Amino acid sequence: MTLRVFGDSISGNCLKVKWTLDYLGLAHDWIETSVLEAETRTEEFLALNPAGQVPTVVLADGRPLAQSNAIILHFAEGSALIPADPYARARMLEWMFWEQYSHEPYVAVARFQVAYLGKSPADLDAKLVARAHGALQRLEDALGAGAFLVGDDCSLADIALVAYTRVAPEGGLTLAPYPAVQAWITRVEAALNITD
Amino acid sequence: MTLRVFGDSISGNCLKVKWTLDYLGLAHDWIETSVLEAETRTEEFLALNPAGQVPTVVLADGRPLAQSNAIILHFAEGSALIPADPYARARMLEWMFWEQYSHEPYVAVARFQVAYLGKSPADLDAKLVARAHGALQRLEDALGAGAFLVGDDCSLADIALVAYTRVAPEGGLTLAPYPAVQAWITRVEAALNITD
Repeated sequence: MTLRVFGDSISGNCLKVKWTLDYLGLAHDWIETSVLEAETRTEEFLALNPAGQVPTVVLADGRPLAQSNAIILHFAEGSALIPADPYARARMLEWMFWEQYSHEPYVAVARFQVAYLGKSPADLDAKLVARAHGALQRLEDALGAGAFLVGDDCSLADIALVAYTRVAPEGGLTLAPYPAVQAWITRVEAALNITD
Repeated sequence: MTLRVFGDSISGNCLKVKWTLDYLGLAHDWIETSVLEAETRTEEFLALNPAGQVPTVVLADGRPLAQSNAIILHFAEGSALIPADPYARARMLEWMFWEQYSHEPYVAVARFQVAYLGKSPADLDAKLVARAHGALQRLEDALGAGAFLVGDDCSLADIALVAYTRVAPEGGLTLAPYPAVQAWITRVEAALNITD
């Protein structure tokens, strides 16, 4: 059976998986699964992933796997998207865990509330916005030193971080103060052939 | 130079690193670094880790590494704490990312607010408590099927998840409804020789 990806196209976490599979040339069926329409809360879906989250993939042999960053680490093993050097690989993982803990809960949540729940950017929680800008500033500082987050090549760290950074303005978070971030988004999109 | 670990002994994230290094027999100097006393916000510390978070380690060659789960993945590579089977390894990573996104922000935060900021459990945010119990219930469901989270042996998934689960009652979160979780805590503590 073909690899199946249960994903919501509006979710950066899900797009990470699509971009990685496309980059690696791995054929897959994309099964559009809407979070807003609670399609991640059906009995069938919860049997695949009790956490009720997308992305969830079902491997060719029928076994499920969840968590965007775990999924892309699994498929990219041995590819150019994971540095061979152990320290560089560890730094890549550092960025990926930081993304889920200190970036996504602010940058992605602001965008979800504004773009999908209809909240005005002015009504966002001030602490949320401050933390989102703190995360963007940290990226800006890091990207002053190099073309990509780890070394000279695009890695899973860039895929994980670009997913919600590139759509931050949809959450009312301007990228104007972050020129290095803007240039990096263009580089990562080019490396991954992201056109939309 | 000896490996240095900047850690706060009250932090489960920091203890993950200590337990893993001890299990692997890797000598290290522990440099107690208090979050409550803002020792993670000094100029010297931010030079090591711009995110201002513990744990942060400094390798023997002077290079820093942060994020608890990235650190333990780095040191445990090739050891029995990481399953050799690619799918089992991916499931371990799934649990580790889930921990940082869907468990730590609720279970650890409740404990921090009660045990270290002096908040009464009754005054905790109801949504926080509900999500903490949701995370504990998910562990209970998963642990009904096996001795450890992934396969038959203790892995980094267990280390990552046990860190705050074992101290959940300090945040007013009773483990009484979760007998499989309680038995698993005892097993993981025995496997890692955790005595305190």
